[in-house]
Amino acid sequence: MPETAKPRVAVIGLGSMGFGMAMSLRRAGLEVTGCDVSADSVKRFVAEGGKGAATPAEAAKSADIVVSVVVNAAQTETILFGKDGVAETLAKGAVFISSATMDPDVARRLAKQLEETGRHYLDAPISGGAQRAAQGELTILASGSPAAFSKARPALDAMAAKLYELGDDAGQGAAFKMINQLLAGVHIAAASEAIAFAAKQGLDIRKVYEVITASAGNSWMFENRMPHVLDGDYAPRSAVDIFVKDLGIIQDMARSQKFPVPVSAAALQMFLMTSAAGMGRDDDASVARMYAKVTGTRLPGEPK
Amino acid sequence: MPETAKPRVAVIGLGSMGFGMAMSLRRAGLEVTGCDVSADSVKRFVAEGGKGAATPAEAAKSADIVVSVVVNAAQTETILFGKDGVAETLAKGAVFISSATMDPDVARRLAKQLEETGRHYLDAPISGGAQRAAQGELTILASGSPAAFSKARPALDAMAAKLYELGDDAGQGAAFKMINQLLAGVHIAAASEAIAFAAKQGLDIRKVYEVITASAGNSWMFENRMPHVLDGDYAPRSAVDIFVKDLGIIQDMARSQKFPVPVSAAALQMFLMTSAAGMGRDDDASVARMYAKVTGTRLPGEPK
Repeated sequence: MPETAKPRVAVIGLGSMGFGMAMSLRRAGLEVTGCDVSADSVKRFVAEGGKGAATPAEAAKSADIVVSVVVNAAQTETILFGKDGVAETLAKGAVFISSATMDPDVARRLAKQLEETGRHYLDAPISGGAQRAAQGELTILASGSPAAFSKARPALDAMAAKLYELGDDAGQGAAFKMINQLLAGVHIAAASEAIAFAAKQGLDIRKVYEVITASAGNSWMFENRMPHVLDGDYAPRSAVDIFVKDLGIIQDMARSQKFPVPVSAAALQMFLMTSAAGMGRDDDASVARMYAKVTGTRLPGEPK
Repeated sequence: MPETAKPRVAVIGLGSMGFGMAMSLRRAGLEVTGCDVSADSVKRFVAEGGKGAATPAEAAKSADIVVSVVVNAAQTETILFGKDGVAETLAKGAVFISSATMDPDVARRLAKQLEETGRHYLDAPISGGAQRAAQGELTILASGSPAAFSKARPALDAMAAKLYELGDDAGQGAAFKMINQLLAGVHIAAASEAIAFAAKQGLDIRKVYEVITASAGNSWMFENRMPHVLDGDYAPRSAVDIFVKDLGIIQDMARSQKFPVPVSAAALQMFLMTSAAGMGRDDDASVARMYAKVTGTRLPGEPK
């Protein structure tokens, strides 16, 4: 592209996060082509004034920047190197921004594989919900070569309120994200254990929420997720199975490094138990509901 | 006492918390008598202008309010009903404020036993460190009869920035405090697991601290305790063995109620392992040091 032209961006994955990110990119004046396995999502984006594409290859054909917004490493690899994948058409020198949470070793492998073909790879997991995605106010934990950062910057600026530049190597962003997920997962499980145990004691759990959020036992996740339990509302903002995946990656990483992580191992079992009980696609605060069901403890909105 | 007179207060236990609370009470204009198993602590309080007593019985003799600031139920029971205990001398109608963290059933038993002798009992566990104790800015989780609250109020006002009134029955304050301790203990263990695991990945743990405290993986304990790890400073602000005790109480309560608490059970094992490795009296952030030692991971201030 000429130096003065706005870069063209392809967004692959128009779910609750990707759609908001694509809209933030458009608001910043970039030309954005959206692509999703759901044709309806693409239609919706086109109705908002975006461009649509049928495949990642088609979306990437004229892009300077590709933003991949899918849930895991396998989907990212398919988008890159599968049939009709980005690597078939993306111009040399363009950059691929990967936002999925994954094992740092896998991020390094995907980056190496793409960079050997003359394109850049930015390892850039995201934090913040759908609302912050739509507002262009995500936190992005990024690592990659200076060239990858430089190419990606117009898109990063449009999507992030807070950009952490965590080193030259792909994998660093992923590693920071995994540490965050370890903590976030344990805190959801602990919050669930605590609130259900409090209900079992007969405590008023609204009062528990008030006391804990003002005390040393507070966590970001306790404060953010426990209102779902107070309201008995388990419509998924983020699903149980996301942490089945992410705490699973932690276990894989830790086992391969011979590093014991018993606290997050226990938390993973609680997410697995909740998923096994049929709540895998429900909101991750459903772990509290699982504790309550198992122990015959009454929570708001649950049958006696 | 005449209604217009300032109540006289006895503080039993002049450790880092009790000393600060006694000073806050004095600052509020109350007459305070201090007592401690350490004669030096009493001398120090007298040097600051307070009164000293040799035994709980002596301290309580002319008190309208007794504030007990010890670490557990056994010490509280000794102070109340042991030889030279408060119950030997405390006037009828006076109030005993118990700040130790304990099993709610034990708090109920001690309250019943004291109230049968015509004195009031306020179950009032505290939260906040030595600094907030000295400033009269503790959080107090209190429950007890209206008469107990009424009698205790001048002391509560002098010691607390935030007073939660959690019901008429002793045991409610203790139960809320135990829920807080469940979460606080899990969060310290999770923070320790995460920071040591991050160091194992070769991440810059100061950067990890910066990223996590701005992300969804944050907790009050991560933010408060992990600077001790960054600085390699394990001088005890709060010791490992406090959570060996408090998470132990959680396990006892949960087991007796047939309520599984696997996440806090895993956290307890990590505190036990840290204590077993000789760090029981060190700062509770030493759990991170234990993870690092076991796995051969280098943390700041630790030998290679």
